[in-house]
Amino acid sequence: MPHPANRILSTEAMTANFGPEATVRALLAFEGALSRAEATVGLIPSESAAAISAACVVDRFGLNDITNRATQSGSLVIPLVEDLITAVEKTDPPAAAFVHRGATSQDVIDTGLVLQLRNAVELLVTDILRIEAALKQLARDHEQTPLVGRTLLQPGPPITLGLKAAGWYAAIRRGKRRIENAAEDALVLQFGGAVGTLSALGDIGLEVAEALAAELDLDLPEAPWHTHRDRIVALASAVAILVGSLGKMARDISLLMQSEVDEAFEPVEEGRGGSSAMPHKRNPVGCMIALSASNRAPGLLSTLLSGMVQEHERALGGWQAEWPTLPALFEATAGAAEAMAEVTEGLKVDAKAMRANIEKTRGLLFSETLAGALMKKLGKAEADKMVRRLSQTVIETGQDLEIVAREELVASGLITGEELGQIFDIDNALGMTAKFIDRQLREKK
Amino acid sequence: MPHPANRILSTEAMTANFGPEATVRALLAFEGALSRAEATVGLIPSESAAAISAACVVDRFGLNDITNRATQSGSLVIPLVEDLITAVEKTDPPAAAFVHRGATSQDVIDTGLVLQLRNAVELLVTDILRIEAALKQLARDHEQTPLVGRTLLQPGPPITLGLKAAGWYAAIRRGKRRIENAAEDALVLQFGGAVGTLSALGDIGLEVAEALAAELDLDLPEAPWHTHRDRIVALASAVAILVGSLGKMARDISLLMQSEVDEAFEPVEEGRGGSSAMPHKRNPVGCMIALSASNRAPGLLSTLLSGMVQEHERALGGWQAEWPTLPALFEATAGAAEAMAEVTEGLKVDAKAMRANIEKTRGLLFSETLAGALMKKLGKAEADKMVRRLSQTVIETGQDLEIVAREELVASGLITGEELGQIFDIDNALGMTAKFIDRQLREKK
Amino acid sequence: MPHPANRILSTEAMTANFGPEATVRALLAFEGALSRAEATVGLIPSESAAAISAACVVDRFGLNDITNRATQSGSLVIPLVEDLITAVEKTDPPAAAFVHRGATSQDVIDTGLVLQLRNAVELLVTDILRIEAALKQLARDHEQTPLVGRTLLQPGPPITLGLKAAGWYAAIRRGKRRIENAAEDALVLQFGGAVGTLSALGDIGLEVAEALAAELDLDLPEAPWHTHRDRIVALASAVAILVGSLGKMARDISLLMQSEVDEAFEPVEEGRGGSSAMPHKRNPVGCMIALSASNRAPGLLSTLLSGMVQEHERALGGWQAEWPTLPALFEATAGAAEAMAEVTEGLKVDAKAMRANIEKTRGLLFSETLAGALMKKLGKAEADKMVRRLSQTVIETGQDLEIVAREELVASGLITGEELGQIFDIDNALGMTAKFIDRQLREKK
Amino acid sequence: MPHPANRILSTEAMTANFGPEATVRALLAFEGALSRAEATVGLIPSESAAAISAACVVDRFGLNDITNRATQSGSLVIPLVEDLITAVEKTDPPAAAFVHRGATSQDVIDTGLVLQLRNAVELLVTDILRIEAALKQLARDHEQTPLVGRTLLQPGPPITLGLKAAGWYAAIRRGKRRIENAAEDALVLQFGGAVGTLSALGDIGLEVAEALAAELDLDLPEAPWHTHRDRIVALASAVAILVGSLGKMARDISLLMQSEVDEAFEPVEEGRGGSSAMPHKRNPVGCMIALSASNRAPGLLSTLLSGMVQEHERALGGWQAEWPTLPALFEATAGAAEAMAEVTEGLKVDAKAMRANIEKTRGLLFSETLAGALMKKLGKAEADKMVRRLSQTVIETGQDLEIVAREELVASGLITGEELGQIFDIDNALGMTAKFIDRQLREKK
Repeated sequence: MPHPANRILSTEAMTANFGPEATVRALLAFEGALSRAEATVGLIPSESAAAISAACVVDRFGLNDITNRATQSGSLVIPLVEDLITAVEKTDPPAAAFVHRGATSQDVIDTGLVLQLRNAVELLVTDILRIEAALKQLARDHEQTPLVGRTLLQPGPPITLGLKAAGWYAAIRRGKRRIENAAEDALVLQFGGAVGTLSALGDIGLEVAEALAAELDLDLPEAPWHTHRDRIVALASAVAILVGSLGKMARDISLLMQSEVDEAFEPVEEGRGGSSAMPHKRNPVGCMIALSASNRAPGLLSTLLSGMVQEHERALGGWQAEWPTLPALFEATAGAAEAMAEVTEGLKVDAKAMRANIEKTRGLLFSETLAGALMKKLGKAEADKMVRRLSQTVIETGQDLEIVAREELVASGLITGEELGQIFDIDNALGMTAKFIDRQLREKK
Repeated sequence: MPHPANRILSTEAMTANFGPEATVRALLAFEGALSRAEATVGLIPSESAAAISAACVVDRFGLNDITNRATQSGSLVIPLVEDLITAVEKTDPPAAAFVHRGATSQDVIDTGLVLQLRNAVELLVTDILRIEAALKQLARDHEQTPLVGRTLLQPGPPITLGLKAAGWYAAIRRGKRRIENAAEDALVLQFGGAVGTLSALGDIGLEVAEALAAELDLDLPEAPWHTHRDRIVALASAVAILVGSLGKMARDISLLMQSEVDEAFEPVEEGRGGSSAMPHKRNPVGCMIALSASNRAPGLLSTLLSGMVQEHERALGGWQAEWPTLPALFEATAGAAEAMAEVTEGLKVDAKAMRANIEKTRGLLFSETLAGALMKKLGKAEADKMVRRLSQTVIETGQDLEIVAREELVASGLITGEELGQIFDIDNALGMTAKFIDRQLREKK
Repeated sequence: MPHPANRILSTEAMTANFGPEATVRALLAFEGALSRAEATVGLIPSESAAAISAACVVDRFGLNDITNRATQSGSLVIPLVEDLITAVEKTDPPAAAFVHRGATSQDVIDTGLVLQLRNAVELLVTDILRIEAALKQLARDHEQTPLVGRTLLQPGPPITLGLKAAGWYAAIRRGKRRIENAAEDALVLQFGGAVGTLSALGDIGLEVAEALAAELDLDLPEAPWHTHRDRIVALASAVAILVGSLGKMARDISLLMQSEVDEAFEPVEEGRGGSSAMPHKRNPVGCMIALSASNRAPGLLSTLLSGMVQEHERALGGWQAEWPTLPALFEATAGAAEAMAEVTEGLKVDAKAMRANIEKTRGLLFSETLAGALMKKLGKAEADKMVRRLSQTVIETGQDLEIVAREELVASGLITGEELGQIFDIDNALGMTAKFIDRQLREKK
Repeated sequence: MPHPANRILSTEAMTANFGPEATVRALLAFEGALSRAEATVGLIPSESAAAISAACVVDRFGLNDITNRATQSGSLVIPLVEDLITAVEKTDPPAAAFVHRGATSQDVIDTGLVLQLRNAVELLVTDILRIEAALKQLARDHEQTPLVGRTLLQPGPPITLGLKAAGWYAAIRRGKRRIENAAEDALVLQFGGAVGTLSALGDIGLEVAEALAAELDLDLPEAPWHTHRDRIVALASAVAILVGSLGKMARDISLLMQSEVDEAFEPVEEGRGGSSAMPHKRNPVGCMIALSASNRAPGLLSTLLSGMVQEHERALGGWQAEWPTLPALFEATAGAAEAMAEVTEGLKVDAKAMRANIEKTRGLLFSETLAGALMKKLGKAEADKMVRRLSQTVIETGQDLEIVAREELVASGLITGEELGQIFDIDNALGMTAKFIDRQLREKK
């Protein structure tokens, strides 16, 4: 049973993917495949491979016992191989001598990890695709739904919700591409024997490696990578960057969801987002999960990066630090991706509230455009000063900037009434919004 | 069942301390204590408190079910309180209305955390005391066991193993003191209700808080600290700093243990430190565990620090990021502390090898002292140059520096033979070693 | 000239404190003090000490040239000592032989760092005291100024601005205390010679150390601490924790300053917080600086923690990583502290807007209290359900919860009108607010 | 003048690339290019563009003064644009109104950063190519130079130095490819105006953007990316991963360079790697620089990742935290890359010492192969047990494992003398070494 916090902040599938059972299953997948690969190249009898493969069934192993014995050697593989030998001895005694042939613990652990990571990436991509689809729809639906643009948490010229969604979308899509590219690089066989030379296999080490890679449907890298973790860390960093993009989206949505802003909301399900003390609350629970992940991913990635400084042919600490850290990173990310999939698929948008918030700024959003229009006549410094003064009047009197400007500027001939009307027309103020949405949604080859 | 990696890299006791059962037990401890506190101040009938307290037994709750339901609200407390109410309703229906009275989820989770941390600190301190005792002994036993001092991984003047051990000891002792001080500060009641005002308890909130603190044997802080995590993070940072000191010791010992250095070794137990591929190996498994912890602690602490930037009266992400991170930090630390307790208690020292390594440097260790002696006559620049030249001869010819120096310097009258003898006498070269050992071992009030 | 970013995000004084000139000045302070200490104990003539001290004037050294030569040895001290010898040779040739006597580069660099840190802590404390005073005043002034309590960025029961300010205050005060305690521990002499034994000083090493500590007005630690960085990192972590508390305050204030919330504002100076594009904007520039610091401190501290794993008697990488990192941490913190001093000293509070925001929630803030009142009659589950239903009516109809509740609950006798009035009275809803303010502001001995 | 630490730990070129002058030059490059782009599309007169471009010369600006004024607005661009306007007014008054037209501060700062990063990547790649070439040569030269394989800092079967070098090489080459790919993605124009819509440019925003990108020889992205930092962070993460690989190499080399191992050495230049206290020392100064970088990069990257969670259309803290952090990361990396270029180009290899260290292990390196050979007859468990017992004899008696094995195993018929001879023949023990070298050195298309 995973820790309760993990259950809230991750997904069941990802937590299970790195759980004790799945971990041992991946290790056994290596041992079984190794025996078959060695049979393929004629190193061991195929009946032995069959006996070993048949024994590689996770349910037959006492996980708790193996785990306890692992504390002695610092490696899960040593007791596991012991028990595998015992199991094989029962059905096919001579086959027992061929168990784990030519491999070292790290081969098993690293390739097992790669198998788990392959599955983890698939799980992530499934939720990322949901987010992409939801955001694409959102961007299309709200291409022309204006809301306040906000810089440094202060109001600026309007944008549309479609532009916001398209920006999230493009970042998530780039994030997915990065993960897929990095996974293609990283998810390769590790098989090097004690020090990465496959010396225990004489002159057929590479043949065995090729057959083993084929058995596990993994690519064979140029060489074992036991102390060169750059590909693993590159995958992890692609994942951490996705979390950053999910966090950005969650921050935005949770800010829109503030009761004082009230422009968009996470979907409400029965019991979802409730509070034990405040029964009416609609808490941004999905955003909370994504934001907690974006709090964690940087530190987790930094551990993996620190761990890269590995000693010679097997690291003392740097490698082992990966063991709990990679699962934690993927678990946090899975939680964030699933949560934001639900949030984006069910996002409630209040377009009226968005427009009302624009109106509440009493035209101040357009001060930049106004200053721009005045610049030609007054120069930048004077125009800015003028608009700053008019804005001050708006803040002090509560009047609308358009009104204030009309009174002062049209009268003095600095601008025409028609020009002023265009400046304060939201649709005029959206600039390249539609184009930037299109360009971001367009499929890339 | 904890993840296998955790079983290797942590201790059973610490992993259990943050496991699902212990977590829920701590939450129930709060709910039971709250009911008794409210009975104490007369807010609820004492029979109700008794009924609630009686129901607060972890075995009676379906942890898996509660955990699954927690995903809806993002809080473990909501389903737990629901089930507690149901349980109380069965034995004392009116008491059910008094469950969780005036508290908010975060009160339960944070105070529950504090109870777990209190236990975690005790567990840590137990192993730290073992390390302290072992290092003190080591420092005394080897007060006069010389070995090469090493700077930038290059040989320098000799020190003694006692000085090395005394340095480790003093760092660990400071680390323990920091943890204890920070724990005293941090391990206090959290009880504030929805927004930290205890508003649901009318004018007796503080009285209830005092009674609740007494029930749980915790200090009552000046005010609720739900979004002020500085004390928690200060405790975590004291723990992370201890890990740094354990890592330093592990780095040193693993370097001494290299077969080419061969000066000190982790104890060997049956099966301990073995390798699946290389049966003769004596792996520094304890150091490995400590070094993996020192790879992880910085990133984990950085997550907690990032999480401090919390929004208003309950954080969105920063608080929740603590949930898996604090346990991970304590688990890694417990593994490191236990491992280094075993390493230091059983450290094998090869004093002969230490002396042999000094001799292998052919007197180059004493080049600084030689240069110092020549400085008076030659000035620093000339003396350094001279010694650098003599050292070069040593490196090229394989002769001993003392011999080379005698030939050149005594002949030319730059130094007397007697002076030279003293320069190359190890005991003469230890400077303040004995005093620095004493000063570090001395008990502080 | 410091980097422009640093000039914006730090303070002039702190940047200067870690600048090239101040760094070399601190190194020279060590060399001068060392000569005087050695004269005090009779190791070198006092005229030599006078000559060396007289030469230790930063303006006389070619910083650029020294820095360039430092790249060869990886240590600033080697070229500096060369130039110091040259300088002394000019005024007192025999004294030149006594320069840097018995010390190693790391002694100079570490003690120089300690001198800079001592000044850095003083600079920080000055701004922290400003913040404390401003917050104390704010807490007193707004003890009874109600505003919406906000959890997960959603409205909850009311608190007062005084409570918010008192919470910030107490966190900052704890932060200051932690820094001062850690500084007392950390700011001690480093003096150990090549490997920490002071071997080059024969049997008077400790005497020289005592005299040197006295010269520099530093405490003498039990032993040299060259590879035990725990005290330095503990100081840095106290600083990083303060940054977290400053960041929390900045996050809160920047959220209050959103135009849709509009409850409190950074002070506006001429040009301060302006925007090149939007002339009317009042940007939360102070909060921005503090929040950027709280983004940086966790990563910087994690570097320092990682660096603790130091090899033997001088580290290869871990120590040197401190050099740019400690200044960066203190510079970021100084920027944050000064910015928040200005923000808190000049904070504009709009108490009316605060009350208006409470009213805009149409009584939903009091739903918890209402549920609490109904619980006695209905049980928790029913009461919560009832209030959730009434809240839904409020959300859908725009009516006030008090009205809705009166219609339904008083009619059905579940609650009296008087009770209802008390529930929806803000003053009644503040619980222990006043007490929690008092307790946090109270001076601690 | 950069900070002395930076001068040691970075390179002059990289430090200058992010210095105040280069920063302002990059900002001015944007402003000049913007004016020409706007002239190209007919928005402003080409004479005005010429006047503005002519004024964009860094020497004419008072950097110190601009930097000081930047503290008011929190943005370097505001005072810079003011001074640029003043400068343009002097030569072409009407042109002044066209300065910075349609742009926002962040456009200038981000695109300026991109220009600096483009140069920074070029600087890095230059040194990476040096390392690649040196390592390729090393791998070829020492394809057959055997040395002890070391796992967990303990001896294992032999490898060759060529294999070690090929492993370093492949990691560095992958690192370079990652940086180049990420740079291609990240180094694109940022141009969005106040909120990313280019609203101030009416309907020709995109045209201006295209012309501006062309002026600066940058690609035009689908849309402005002001608050989507994923591409920048992906570049930074590729850089941080390279640092990890450099650190791994530096760790390895510094371990080989220990006087007790004595197998390979950094090149010695006059004064390089010297010590103020120990004149004979050959310090691994290059490795030290790389290792300090690998201590720093994880924390710096974690800051950038944390900063990704940006609010709406301009971030409050997360963006600004990048300003000092990206330069610090590139500076550290440049120092590491240059240092390791020098180290690898000049690495001294002592092949004799490598072979001697193999011999010193008295055949224990081959225990795995021996166990493998015995497995067929004895089964894995028995074979391991047997070899462990023989190894114990070696450790206790100091005899060679081959001798011990011959006595016991050949006599008892478990193995033939010839088989034994092959097991203890180094050349036989290298397995796939040659193939793994070839595969890693092979050019990839």
